[in-house]
Amino acid sequence: MPVATPYLRVDLGRLRRNVRRVADQAAAAQISLRPHAKTHKSLEIARLQLAMGARGLTVATVGEAEAFVRGGCTDVFIAYPLWVDDHRAERLRDLTEQARVAIGVDSVYSAANLGRRLGGTGVEVLVEIDSGHHRTGVRPEEAGDVARASARVGLPVRGVFTFPGHGYSPGAADEVVATEARALRRAREAVEAEGIEVRVVSGGSTPTLAASLVSAGVSGADEAGGQDVGRVTELRPGVYVFGDAQQWELGTTDPDDIALTARTTVVSHAGGRVVLDAGSKVLGADRAAYATGYGRVLERPRARIVSLSEHHAVVEWPGRRPRLGTQLDVVPNHVCAAVNLSDALWVEEAGRLRAWPVAARGLNS
Amino acid sequence: MPVATPYLRVDLGRLRRNVRRVADQAAAAQISLRPHAKTHKSLEIARLQLAMGARGLTVATVGEAEAFVRGGCTDVFIAYPLWVDDHRAERLRDLTEQARVAIGVDSVYSAANLGRRLGGTGVEVLVEIDSGHHRTGVRPEEAGDVARASARVGLPVRGVFTFPGHGYSPGAADEVVATEARALRRAREAVEAEGIEVRVVSGGSTPTLAASLVSAGVSGADEAGGQDVGRVTELRPGVYVFGDAQQWELGTTDPDDIALTARTTVVSHAGGRVVLDAGSKVLGADRAAYATGYGRVLERPRARIVSLSEHHAVVEWPGRRPRLGTQLDVVPNHVCAAVNLSDALWVEEAGRLRAWPVAARGLNS
Repeated sequence: MPVATPYLRVDLGRLRRNVRRVADQAAAAQISLRPHAKTHKSLEIARLQLAMGARGLTVATVGEAEAFVRGGCTDVFIAYPLWVDDHRAERLRDLTEQARVAIGVDSVYSAANLGRRLGGTGVEVLVEIDSGHHRTGVRPEEAGDVARASARVGLPVRGVFTFPGHGYSPGAADEVVATEARALRRAREAVEAEGIEVRVVSGGSTPTLAASLVSAGVSGADEAGGQDVGRVTELRPGVYVFGDAQQWELGTTDPDDIALTARTTVVSHAGGRVVLDAGSKVLGADRAAYATGYGRVLERPRARIVSLSEHHAVVEWPGRRPRLGTQLDVVPNHVCAAVNLSDALWVEEAGRLRAWPVAARGLNS
Repeated sequence: MPVATPYLRVDLGRLRRNVRRVADQAAAAQISLRPHAKTHKSLEIARLQLAMGARGLTVATVGEAEAFVRGGCTDVFIAYPLWVDDHRAERLRDLTEQARVAIGVDSVYSAANLGRRLGGTGVEVLVEIDSGHHRTGVRPEEAGDVARASARVGLPVRGVFTFPGHGYSPGAADEVVATEARALRRAREAVEAEGIEVRVVSGGSTPTLAASLVSAGVSGADEAGGQDVGRVTELRPGVYVFGDAQQWELGTTDPDDIALTARTTVVSHAGGRVVLDAGSKVLGADRAAYATGYGRVLERPRARIVSLSEHHAVVEWPGRRPRLGTQLDVVPNHVCAAVNLSDALWVEEAGRLRAWPVAARGLNS
């Protein structure tokens, strides 16, 4: 029985190659890899990452952590400044019975709250720093205050982290990695000034990955094998396993490495258009300012998805239109959003498809 | 045990009031209601709509049709120009054993394909018309050709339909309803010119609903009780059951009628911001050109969600910021997208919450 379009399709050869390549690069740069599992939400892919040397997983929510710990992962970092009530605290304590657990914290007030509920349970914290993305995270100079407040209430401080989300912009990677490194260095110094050891300095993202690895290599070389206090010790990229149209358009993924597409069918030629049966409920509605459309057609890079409804993608198609019924592979703009819409990834190997469940789909709390 | 934020919350009193009001209005205008179930994907809400007089359901995919027929609905219209292969044809034939089934068609070529696979099975078709949204659907003048091609291959033609999606624009409703009515009138005439009876003329959407009902009432009066060939006989709104921030900002839903919100928690005050724990994986990433943000805060209409990540909403908050840990209700921009991200709706009645499954979630094929 064929799988009915639209569905998400994974090229297993490309996926393995992507996971292997980044694992090797991180190892060569002597940097730990803690991939963000929010991208794939899949136990099979998490196991592949861990088997190839990832030191643990990054996740965004307690629900994701629970799914991956149930699936056998023994080291999870919830890279999020959780607000923890009694119920969430109980779930976190339960997790510590099977895994090392760390969470984010970005205020003295929140540290006090965490301490009341999680102090002494073994849950560790990393202080979140704003390195320029301006979402969550304290200013680097404030990291010491948050670390001290955490340590005082029985929360072991593992280190500092940031998400350089402002690296999602064309040509931004090098400068963003430099500002990220400066912010993390200042944060590290501020924490160490409180007499607290910083064991982990964590950053990174897929668009800034290459620049981070270069920077780590150079930084390591400068120190002639010694320890550079400004050095990022851990990277947390997510999207690299699949790639997506954002990375393609940012120039940080080669289209030949893209491992996930939405398989779609041409359903209409109305008005001379090419309309596909995948819309925002399959591809996601993400469209960054620099994006040239709502996703890309892998087979036809010059085509543009000019409008998207829930179940329709309208494509501006150069040249002769594909017939009604033709199947095409669309690369979603933002693969994390697309994966979170589907219950299964259809994995292709040697021409056969099998389903991998999206085990942590929708676990947002 | 409290439900952990972020989660979708439904006010049952408001939901029932919305369903009842539109059912009563349609009945008064002597127009059939076939609500689009893609909005709620919930058997409980479908049953409420049918109990209050809806003649059947509209859905977007075969998978949605299967879910609602399994749930007891005996009349489904898949308002989509399906491309049908052998497998999809088998699923549609199976559906006809338990329900009346109609699908969309928008080309002679597709009609021939449908005929080969579904001719004589009882699956009916409605010819889709482009009334100005420029997505799928033939020009009204071409409706006769498609209807003739369908009838010739054993597909009973029920009528014509359109989706006036260009009504999703401030102040557009009256003019859009007028152009929709003209397009449907021309399409009806084109089909009848082929000697094919048009039993259903189907249109409508939530933003154009009020204008459609006025137009239907006026149109009915003009004919002094007789039949007006241009009259829409069936409306297919979806969003009206819940309302959302798009409808709020278009002025087509009163905030006091909004029946679904994402319950969120304030997790960060970093940089003086208010950051909530619901992002695009809960709210959806939809942002229409006219939207003032990525959703609205129900309790604070002057607040604006100025940026959205997968698990963060950054809010520009007028006045004194709510404390960390405060729970707030966010109205998603596009409720259909938000519902399709969650496995359950938490329904509040008399202060208690129970889960209604989003039974047709993710059934995109």
